[in-house]
Amino acid sequence: MPIDTPQLLDTARQIIEISATIAFALSGVLKAAHKKLDVVGVCVLAFIAAFGGGTLRDLLLDNRPFFWASHDYLVWAVLFMSLLAISFLRRKHFQITERAMLWPDMLGLGLFTAVGVDLAAELGMSPLISVMMGVVTGVFGGVLRDVLCGEIPQAFRDHQPYAVCAFAGGGADLLLRQFDAVHETAPLLACVVVTAGLRALAMWRQWRIPSWRMED
Amino acid sequence: MPIDTPQLLDTARQIIEISATIAFALSGVLKAAHKKLDVVGVCVLAFIAAFGGGTLRDLLLDNRPFFWASHDYLVWAVLFMSLLAISFLRRKHFQITERAMLWPDMLGLGLFTAVGVDLAAELGMSPLISVMMGVVTGVFGGVLRDVLCGEIPQAFRDHQPYAVCAFAGGGADLLLRQFDAVHETAPLLACVVVTAGLRALAMWRQWRIPSWRMED
Amino acid sequence: MPIDTPQLLDTARQIIEISATIAFALSGVLKAAHKKLDVVGVCVLAFIAAFGGGTLRDLLLDNRPFFWASHDYLVWAVLFMSLLAISFLRRKHFQITERAMLWPDMLGLGLFTAVGVDLAAELGMSPLISVMMGVVTGVFGGVLRDVLCGEIPQAFRDHQPYAVCAFAGGGADLLLRQFDAVHETAPLLACVVVTAGLRALAMWRQWRIPSWRMED
Repeated sequence: MPIDTPQLLDTARQIIEISATIAFALSGVLKAAHKKLDVVGVCVLAFIAAFGGGTLRDLLLDNRPFFWASHDYLVWAVLFMSLLAISFLRRKHFQITERAMLWPDMLGLGLFTAVGVDLAAELGMSPLISVMMGVVTGVFGGVLRDVLCGEIPQAFRDHQPYAVCAFAGGGADLLLRQFDAVHETAPLLACVVVTAGLRALAMWRQWRIPSWRMED
Repeated sequence: MPIDTPQLLDTARQIIEISATIAFALSGVLKAAHKKLDVVGVCVLAFIAAFGGGTLRDLLLDNRPFFWASHDYLVWAVLFMSLLAISFLRRKHFQITERAMLWPDMLGLGLFTAVGVDLAAELGMSPLISVMMGVVTGVFGGVLRDVLCGEIPQAFRDHQPYAVCAFAGGGADLLLRQFDAVHETAPLLACVVVTAGLRALAMWRQWRIPSWRMED
Repeated sequence: MPIDTPQLLDTARQIIEISATIAFALSGVLKAAHKKLDVVGVCVLAFIAAFGGGTLRDLLLDNRPFFWASHDYLVWAVLFMSLLAISFLRRKHFQITERAMLWPDMLGLGLFTAVGVDLAAELGMSPLISVMMGVVTGVFGGVLRDVLCGEIPQAFRDHQPYAVCAFAGGGADLLLRQFDAVHETAPLLACVVVTAGLRALAMWRQWRIPSWRMED
């Protein structure tokens, strides 16, 4: 009996999706901890970091119901994880948590971007707008998380390639979608590989993106 | 002639609705005063504190027209109240204003939560999402008000049970909706009583909700 | 051959539209420069300053597709301008850039307000709500730009008539729409003239709008 590749891919996708959602939510939990928020703040920031990007994309594309509204087990998971974290996660665990989140976060950035690009392209958006919707899906959960904490979003000021990796991955996704010959999961795979690969490279080589030179 | 109970309830509901809207708007006005905003800032914050929660809920549920768009006498009332406040309200009146707002705010939190829960449940949302939409309706006006002032929302960091009371009230609402035998206004009444009752208890007994213990 | 007035007006409108979009986007670029954001932050702030107001109005009115989604050459222009600015604009050019933006910004405030008022009125909104939608279109790009930078929006605290001019212009637009006799572009023209004229007067005479007197 041959191995059922599509189903393997589907399972892989679901595993990435759930672990990325948890990693995104954990970034909200850690931010809430740094800001000394109460349990309501922790849960809200976890929710917004996990689902804010996709929700903003769906608002812009007028796409309903929201992903979290039709998959509410994910909301339960994020709430449960938030309560678990507030009970057991202590400052000494922060560093190891952040390291453990790195890989799911990278893969999730790629996967969420691909989902956004594909949805926008199917709704007939132009290539530029489709890639933008992909970047919004992957990046704006973190942006909303930071705005709710009264901070300038990290994605706008840390000079690391993050949104830029998602932009490149979204471009790869759209490019592959032009060819009829390729398997239907190829664009999604390309987006995940390009986004996560660039992000890993960027962190390893400590790439910096251009910023304003204010000296002159 | 028997007393017409449904109409009495309806009148009571309208009185709570209008006084709660004014109390929510006043919280925006006071925040604007603390931040030394100009008259535009005062009016916008009053509007957002009063209508922001319901507007966000309607955006998420794709429900139109907005409450304030079809009842624009409420917008006139909020605008008029804002101009009145900027003309006559002085720092020495702030404390008494805040005390006078306490009861309408509590009842309004319960009423707005019930409205949100009922709308979401009627649109077929799951119980968790329905209660969330109720909490968004009651709490996110204040959250948006604080975000527009560049502050971390009070609801996320003051360690007082506020969103939590709305959550419990929304749960009571949904629970009663399961029973066919009860009168149709019973869930709404239960939500208002549970939310406002818990909130009053919490303020009287100075309850605190858990927050992050950062010491260890 | 007579001069084709409607087409002249249409061309004038397009010129104002494009130069105002660029002026609004530049206000985002300069804000990003002051905050030392990276290239992602510069592009996002430029986009939000240029299109945020119209996008919020369309979200509230449930109007799709967004202006920028169906005219994506404008998004390309804003992106291109942002990259150009980060490459060549230096601190010594800031003052002259701000002065060059004044007129396109004034005319754009009037034009964007008129577009918002007309759209809302055609969707059957009440006069107050229509004028509010006009003000949102003209002013909330700047508000969202400031919120994303963790600042209290300039429009709420600089005590200069800005939103107030748009409010008056929107009122003039609605007023002229009551008369069947006038040419269909008259309301739009009235809104631009009143808004930009009041704004120019306000800057020349250094008018201030009322704010809170906290001393007593």
